[in-house]
Amino acid sequence: MIDKVFRNATLFTPVDRGRPQAGPDQGAVRVVEKGAIWCRDGLIQAVGPEEEVLRSLHPCVPDQETDLEGRCVIPGFVDPHTHLCFAATREREFSLRLQGVEYLEILRRGGGILSTVRSVRETDEEELFLATRRRALSALRFGTTTVEIKSGYGLDTETELKMLRVIRRIGRETPLDVVPTFLGAHAVPEEYRDRSDAFVDLVIEEMIPAVVRQGIARFCDVFCEKGVFSVEQSRRILQAATAAGLGAKIHADEVHDLGGAGLAAEVRAVSAEHLLAASEANLEAMARAGTIAVVLPATAYSLRKPFAPARTMIELGVPVALATDCNPGSSYTESMPFVFGLAVLLTGLSVEEALTAATLNAAYAVGMAERVGSLDVGKQADFLVLEGETPAVIAYHAGVNPVVQVYKKGERLKVKG
Amino acid sequence: MIDKVFRNATLFTPVDRGRPQAGPDQGAVRVVEKGAIWCRDGLIQAVGPEEEVLRSLHPCVPDQETDLEGRCVIPGFVDPHTHLCFAATREREFSLRLQGVEYLEILRRGGGILSTVRSVRETDEEELFLATRRRALSALRFGTTTVEIKSGYGLDTETELKMLRVIRRIGRETPLDVVPTFLGAHAVPEEYRDRSDAFVDLVIEEMIPAVVRQGIARFCDVFCEKGVFSVEQSRRILQAATAAGLGAKIHADEVHDLGGAGLAAEVRAVSAEHLLAASEANLEAMARAGTIAVVLPATAYSLRKPFAPARTMIELGVPVALATDCNPGSSYTESMPFVFGLAVLLTGLSVEEALTAATLNAAYAVGMAERVGSLDVGKQADFLVLEGETPAVIAYHAGVNPVVQVYKKGERLKVKG
Ligand SMILES: [Zn+2]
Ligand SMILES: [Zn+2]
Repeated sequence: MIDKVFRNATLFTPVDRGRPQAGPDQGAVRVVEKGAIWCRDGLIQAVGPEEEVLRSLHPCVPDQETDLEGRCVIPGFVDPHTHLCFAATREREFSLRLQGVEYLEILRRGGGILSTVRSVRETDEEELFLATRRRALSALRFGTTTVEIKSGYGLDTETELKMLRVIRRIGRETPLDVVPTFLGAHAVPEEYRDRSDAFVDLVIEEMIPAVVRQGIARFCDVFCEKGVFSVEQSRRILQAATAAGLGAKIHADEVHDLGGAGLAAEVRAVSAEHLLAASEANLEAMARAGTIAVVLPATAYSLRKPFAPARTMIELGVPVALATDCNPGSSYTESMPFVFGLAVLLTGLSVEEALTAATLNAAYAVGMAERVGSLDVGKQADFLVLEGETPAVIAYHAGVNPVVQVYKKGERLKVKG
Repeated sequence: MIDKVFRNATLFTPVDRGRPQAGPDQGAVRVVEKGAIWCRDGLIQAVGPEEEVLRSLHPCVPDQETDLEGRCVIPGFVDPHTHLCFAATREREFSLRLQGVEYLEILRRGGGILSTVRSVRETDEEELFLATRRRALSALRFGTTTVEIKSGYGLDTETELKMLRVIRRIGRETPLDVVPTFLGAHAVPEEYRDRSDAFVDLVIEEMIPAVVRQGIARFCDVFCEKGVFSVEQSRRILQAATAAGLGAKIHADEVHDLGGAGLAAEVRAVSAEHLLAASEANLEAMARAGTIAVVLPATAYSLRKPFAPARTMIELGVPVALATDCNPGSSYTESMPFVFGLAVLLTGLSVEEALTAATLNAAYAVGMAERVGSLDVGKQADFLVLEGETPAVIAYHAGVNPVVQVYKKGERLKVKG
């Protein structure tokens, strides 16, 4: 048993009331001026004002004591939506897009998501692991201590399983907690062009059972969009997935309001993502169902699109989480501080709302709130020391990494370089 | 004499035609696929296709040869507008502003620029130097190899000179080239409240002569804005400054269209800054005068304001430069890659236009184009190795530092950490 105490910190943490925080609660952040965290074997035993923490554990003596010199401490970021597992970037395609080349033309020139599918299929497992680990460790330097990673660049059973094995290794061979999501229905592969129903059958009859048999995914996600998978197809997939024991997630209403947000509420998905075009009625349905809206401002930024209406969501009582969406096509960033800054400065979240969105609500969105997402007794001592006085520094010191120290289960990680 | 050759690079550089690049030329970037740079004692002797470079210097043998492995190389960034020399951040004020507190109320609570003036006056010179150096070295890690730094938080002769001495030391004691700008007329100090004309007299009769006598500034800048200095006051200051041998710069039309951009053209200022509210007629006058528009997208971002119309400027033939405006109030960032990304994704510059804006035009804006700003014979071998294939990676890999190596005068700098 190893006891560690971190003293003299200014703690900022959302308050975990046993559910994702919505409405006015989204901005309810607890501040402890001269605070401390006591952890035993990486789990928080006590947290709060330093005197109380020390008193509550008396007569225990910690094995290690760290003076955080009054600095600002927040929970480690949880990035609840990434596609970190890919082989090659698509920088040339980004340039074409900036030049105004249409997506269809980009596809014609061999770009788009199917080019990532090709390269992931061709890349051997070890190499894919190394590329993914490099990005995961970069995310860690930006303060991400728990990350969801989706498959979805395989689109055949074999490659989807290869991706999920790589994702599992990231969880085992880096300090990060990793939540694997099966996203077999990310796009219709070339082999199934104009036969998307047959591909949906494959996902349901072959992929989901294989994934569940191997126990290598916690969630099933689907890309519900015009030209990808319809609401009806998405419903079939998510119903099969939940019947098989996977949690449900959905990429919904990114471009067109197909009603994906409503489907999310209907199938009791834990989260719906993107939601730039979601209708207010469907957002209200999400609020009633407690479905978390995972907003992805870096994607809107990178695609030069309007941002998802995060303020409206909060006003409607939808719990909001923030994620990078890190992927080689529409949002190549692994920096949660960057996303946090965009959310505050360009979508109008308050610093406190953004903090809850990037930690506690994100933890709920990936089923990890019992272990991470806030500084609460019983959770892992995953926390960040920031350079400034308050979490506002994350937006204030724009474009710069404000994370000076990262702790995972009470252990300080070497993250520089 | 030390000869170094950097081989096997993919070079991207604006083309220096002896003047800032405007209109279609702003986006004219030279690309050399298998390129090389040969430098002698830090100055470029030859640059271009590797074979040509080696042939042109035959039979010289370099003392040192570096294989850049095909990576993307651009000139070091020139940040032509910063207020890096300050003592304390204003994070609490940033939070108040986010909460919608009015600037006048912030002033009443002791915030705003005059709070920075107070702390700079109170801070001793060594401490001010250390704080400034920390920021300058961070800027260097983001690829800034030449930086302009303004005074303007003294507002009395003694403190303005103290700031300019600190700025000079940054140039002497870090690898950065530093261009010092005297900005005595940055605000009306409390001692001169309601007597701004008397303060302008002080700037003209006492400060400018003292600054010129000590030879510690290259430019004189003035903040022309409603409630700060009028066009008439700004004209008096800039005329006195240019008569005394300083170059002229002007913070113009940031909030209100007072005609500062027109004044810039009239007094042949090398640059006018901000320009969010500048009229098209005055931008046309700038184009005719060759006055560079220094746009500051991180300031608009941080203040949640619309961006300066950079595309219109380019269409009107105004040469555009990019800068961080790094300061504790309205734009706390020292990252040129972040500013580059905003310029491309949110103001609609092309990658090539942004590259010229962040290097060659910026060098012209601070009178340094003979030495830096492009990869041309006779200039310093100041260059960056980027992580991607093209400079598009600066915008593509959003919120992340794409600079993997920084070279100043042919010397690789240790910039990590
Ligand atoms: Zn996604
Ligand atoms: Zn300024």
